[in-house]
Amino acid sequence: MGKLLIVGTVAFDAIETPFGKTDKILGGAATFIGLAASQFDVQSAIVSIVGDDFPQEYIDLLKNKNIDISSLEVVKGGKTFFWKGKYHNDLNSRDTLVTELNTLADFKPVVPENFKNAEVVMLGNLHPNIQMSVLDQMTKRPKLVILDTMNFWMDNALEELMQVIKRTDVITINDEEARQLTHEYSLVKAAEEIQKMGPKYVVIKKGEHGALLFHKEDVFFAPALPLEEVFDPTGAGDTFAGGFAGYLAATGNTSFNNLKNAVIHGSNLASFCVERFGTERMVALDRKQINKRMHQFKALTQFDIELQ
Amino acid sequence: MGKLLIVGTVAFDAIETPFGKTDKILGGAATFIGLAASQFDVQSAIVSIVGDDFPQEYIDLLKNKNIDISSLEVVKGGKTFFWKGKYHNDLNSRDTLVTELNTLADFKPVVPENFKNAEVVMLGNLHPNIQMSVLDQMTKRPKLVILDTMNFWMDNALEELMQVIKRTDVITINDEEARQLTHEYSLVKAAEEIQKMGPKYVVIKKGEHGALLFHKEDVFFAPALPLEEVFDPTGAGDTFAGGFAGYLAATGNTSFNNLKNAVIHGSNLASFCVERFGTERMVALDRKQINKRMHQFKALTQFDIELQ
Repeated sequence: MGKLLIVGTVAFDAIETPFGKTDKILGGAATFIGLAASQFDVQSAIVSIVGDDFPQEYIDLLKNKNIDISSLEVVKGGKTFFWKGKYHNDLNSRDTLVTELNTLADFKPVVPENFKNAEVVMLGNLHPNIQMSVLDQMTKRPKLVILDTMNFWMDNALEELMQVIKRTDVITINDEEARQLTHEYSLVKAAEEIQKMGPKYVVIKKGEHGALLFHKEDVFFAPALPLEEVFDPTGAGDTFAGGFAGYLAATGNTSFNNLKNAVIHGSNLASFCVERFGTERMVALDRKQINKRMHQFKALTQFDIELQ
Repeated sequence: MGKLLIVGTVAFDAIETPFGKTDKILGGAATFIGLAASQFDVQSAIVSIVGDDFPQEYIDLLKNKNIDISSLEVVKGGKTFFWKGKYHNDLNSRDTLVTELNTLADFKPVVPENFKNAEVVMLGNLHPNIQMSVLDQMTKRPKLVILDTMNFWMDNALEELMQVIKRTDVITINDEEARQLTHEYSLVKAAEEIQKMGPKYVVIKKGEHGALLFHKEDVFFAPALPLEEVFDPTGAGDTFAGGFAGYLAATGNTSFNNLKNAVIHGSNLASFCVERFGTERMVALDRKQINKRMHQFKALTQFDIELQ
């Protein structure tokens, strides 16, 4: 069983989609990553911060998924990071209505002693300085450092972000962000450029249009499963990353072929995430449902043409 | 060797993309369909109309690809259908600058005698009444009727279009058009609705995001090959349809599994089409290049996860 160290937000989300709205519910990148990774045979820990307004119920939920939360700092009198957003009708874009950093503003991550040798480190979307601090605390170079980030850090902390990217093995990024980072419109060219910045592997997430995995001359593509209804896309990208990282930590194999499998596992889990608000679907998810959908993924993409 | 009957435009296109512009060059749905289908072991004919401004060189080009053009009507003193368009920077959208119907305005298609029993009929994007007239001339029900259409006919000839759709086995349509036709945002639901209108198979084209094939509970997805550069998307959808139809006519097998292969062949050919202006790449394309790229398609999508 491999060790997976996760750093990222644990948060309150309030979400509005064309199908309904929620009050403050459990959210945050590390939460979605941890829940997805918990589907695999891994020992995982979340490094994050919340206020004492964060319900015990949510803490228990993470604990019950066998996630080590000894480094989930609870700040007395502090308030938990809060994001409120409203999705447009096509669910492909959204407006952020509220972002309250709260305790996250002064977050100094502390890696648990027994995770300083974790084989896989998943750096969830956060300020690059926090991501870097986690890497600096590792006692040995992890087998795989996976980085998720977003355009906000490209706009506001590009230098720091580039330093983290340099120390990353796999970057997961969406198509627009890949273009912004490289000034290349072609995703093939963008992935080439990003590999020059450090990461050996580049995963470009295209939301409902699937995800591409690049490594040197090799390209692999995982579609998103076509669904009757997408209910709430919140956390889909983090769930993808968590499935990807969790599968790799569990198998301990970082070959390109196994990274392909990891992309499929990530896409599979993300297809569940979007079926309900927030973490609702991920919390209730079991192995049987996952395996069943894996058959659908195979049917969706596999064909039998004799090659010449 | 199966027979493939193609009806559609043979035209002049003038194209502007961020990479350059052309004067009037060879274009038209039937042209692209015919060129793509000619890569397979089929006997194909184009039913269309041009003016006598249409160069002998273009006619020879089609002839040399073994396309029967005995029903390509050349109108004395008439002018060939002309389309001029300009693509936006991302190549995903374009403005039509000029549409001159010319001889197409009074086109009465005449199916060649020896193609009235064609196994596969490919109804390229045209007024539904013209498509219907071709179907009406068939002496026996074709094994497979494939229909391509667009939003313009939904806006301007919906009733006539619905009559053609009713007699269609496979419809190829883009994502926005599928939504417009069904008032369903989810492509899964849209494909369900379209199957109720007649077609047993629904192919939803998503451009650079690939194509989906739906049949009852089954879904198959073919990605578009990620390319370094997309130069000119003109004709990509028709090339896809031509590869799809040509492969099915050549193999004579209309099982779902073979339709999956047809979707891959169509995507493969479309990936070449967009590499140069107009038909340039398709004219020069040979079997060896196609086979090589088919290996890339396989590598792009095939994975080895043991299912449970």
